[in-house]
Amino acid sequence: MLMHTTAINKEMEIIRLVAGDFSRHPLQVNGLLEADAEIIRWPGKNEEYLVLKTDGIHEEIKEKLYEDPYLIGWMAVTAPISDIAAVGAQPTGILLSVILPQEYDEKWLEQFKGGINEACSQYNIYVLGGDTNFGDHFSVSATVVAGIKSQRPLLRKGMKPGDHLYATAPLGLGNAYAYARFFDTSLKVNYQPVARLSESRLISKYATACMDSSDGLFPALALLADINEVGFNLDVPLQNLLEKQASMIYHNANLPAWMLMAGPHGEYELLFSVPREVGLDFEQAIKNEDWQPVYLGKITSGQQINFSSGAMQVQCSPATIPNLFYEANGNIQLYFELLMQQHKTWVQQ
Amino acid sequence: MLMHTTAINKEMEIIRLVAGDFSRHPLQVNGLLEADAEIIRWPGKNEEYLVLKTDGIHEEIKEKLYEDPYLIGWMAVTAPISDIAAVGAQPTGILLSVILPQEYDEKWLEQFKGGINEACSQYNIYVLGGDTNFGDHFSVSATVVAGIKSQRPLLRKGMKPGDHLYATAPLGLGNAYAYARFFDTSLKVNYQPVARLSESRLISKYATACMDSSDGLFPALALLADINEVGFNLDVPLQNLLEKQASMIYHNANLPAWMLMAGPHGEYELLFSVPREVGLDFEQAIKNEDWQPVYLGKITSGQQINFSSGAMQVQCSPATIPNLFYEANGNIQLYFELLMQQHKTWVQQ
Repeated sequence: MLMHTTAINKEMEIIRLVAGDFSRHPLQVNGLLEADAEIIRWPGKNEEYLVLKTDGIHEEIKEKLYEDPYLIGWMAVTAPISDIAAVGAQPTGILLSVILPQEYDEKWLEQFKGGINEACSQYNIYVLGGDTNFGDHFSVSATVVAGIKSQRPLLRKGMKPGDHLYATAPLGLGNAYAYARFFDTSLKVNYQPVARLSESRLISKYATACMDSSDGLFPALALLADINEVGFNLDVPLQNLLEKQASMIYHNANLPAWMLMAGPHGEYELLFSVPREVGLDFEQAIKNEDWQPVYLGKITSGQQINFSSGAMQVQCSPATIPNLFYEANGNIQLYFELLMQQHKTWVQQ
Repeated sequence: MLMHTTAINKEMEIIRLVAGDFSRHPLQVNGLLEADAEIIRWPGKNEEYLVLKTDGIHEEIKEKLYEDPYLIGWMAVTAPISDIAAVGAQPTGILLSVILPQEYDEKWLEQFKGGINEACSQYNIYVLGGDTNFGDHFSVSATVVAGIKSQRPLLRKGMKPGDHLYATAPLGLGNAYAYARFFDTSLKVNYQPVARLSESRLISKYATACMDSSDGLFPALALLADINEVGFNLDVPLQNLLEKQASMIYHNANLPAWMLMAGPHGEYELLFSVPREVGLDFEQAIKNEDWQPVYLGKITSGQQINFSSGAMQVQCSPATIPNLFYEANGNIQLYFELLMQQHKTWVQQ
């Protein structure tokens, strides 16, 4: 007899282990894991918030998913800015913590700084400061400082059964890029996501909750399911949600569509829920903007995810897919095998 | 014919290389290297500032200077808080960026968190958020957010020839601890510095400039000399400025006193300058506090440092001592040999 119908999400388990028993600042709006960034009420001010986010690029460099120094610089800024967008804040600047190898290449460093610089001007922010250390491998972590004025912040928490789930754009680019890098270098995928800062202004007016897909669709849904005690009914077949290059990989590599959304390398789109009754207003408001949100499906009350991928219809626990990466202990080859095994199991059901 | 009478400071050269060509935020008060923390004017508010600082503990862990997980946690918080104290700000909270080894020990992690927690309650701040990655070695970087209200911030820049130079307490503990760890483990040195947050309130009323001694006295003086285009006349013989445990190492290991102030592992005291004419007011104000500042000497107009250590009287370029660590390429054994060589050279002069 199963006591738990849903598996425990391993990523969240680690985060709770590392950060779970620190006491919270009395003015902090979000509980642990409840928002993409940290939101602190500004003392004495109504609807004014200080927003902060720290994000590191380590595994991506270690596993050589990112080798181009320009891309590393670009992503060091884009990753935390995407979280700032997800809470509906406007960024001011960034602090960098860099570990340089003892024998660093000055040209490499120039290109890294080029990526930092161009991302900063993309988001209209400045490098405010930083810290440089020496170590065995290059590594970078960044902290963004941002603010929210005269509007409520957007959390991961707040979605309700019946809400509609959207993404800012088609998905799968993060995994498509990783597949091309790790498994078939004859396939070329361009990867340089832009954090959805401008889109987030409109989203924060309508959405009940928001989270970026920096770790891919399924890891995000697992976290949202846990925090909101909800599930997801993805009405649209996953192959119809694929971004152009992801769709190319889907066809050329003959991968199941769901695998291109399995993470943990994502595409930095925003995933957000809109109450059914304001859906039309939202879609109307969007018409005046130069982007088109992608409807994914509905929030449900059972903590399960339903989706169709190719001819296959799947119902699973939200943690099933993201946990495979942790079961593989971060080994990418093994992870891919576990994904394939999971696919076979589902096909045979 | 020598065009430059002073050597170029290697540490500053690296910082300028990594961060020198990022453009500055128009509201940022401090230029590159001009303050211990980043100070941003709060738009529309007079004398109100947002203050940020990122600081990483990497080399200390890699070189096993810090092995005790509690101390690592304590220092991860204390190091950036000390910089916040140096600019006269009050901290709100901290964000942590942690790299965990794949096979981490849960008890070790608990003790690390214990150090974080106790340092946070020491400084009355909270962990606001963070990011956890996996890598080969444990590493931690922290960002503190702080504020200044109705008072000017304190920079490294601002000292004038004639100003008196003080420290919040006797010096040398950082190097004494490193010596006991690396060169004579039979000597026990307790090292758990407390950032001088409360002392900084009074200091910021009187001082023209301030910097912490996180890298030791001489590296700090080299930086202050460069930024302010000044030098230092240390009137008090260095052996009279030694902290109790540093004095014990000085006697037991028969080390020259100046070597216990050579860095780059410091004691997290504040070094600050007070104009001669307000010196009496300052010393009077301090009398009502429960700490006693230590007078070191005077700021001079020539970019040289004069000091006496034992029977020896030295005049050198501010960069001479800190550059030895960079000449040793971070190799501690070699660094110690270079320090000894330097000492011999001075003795023979």
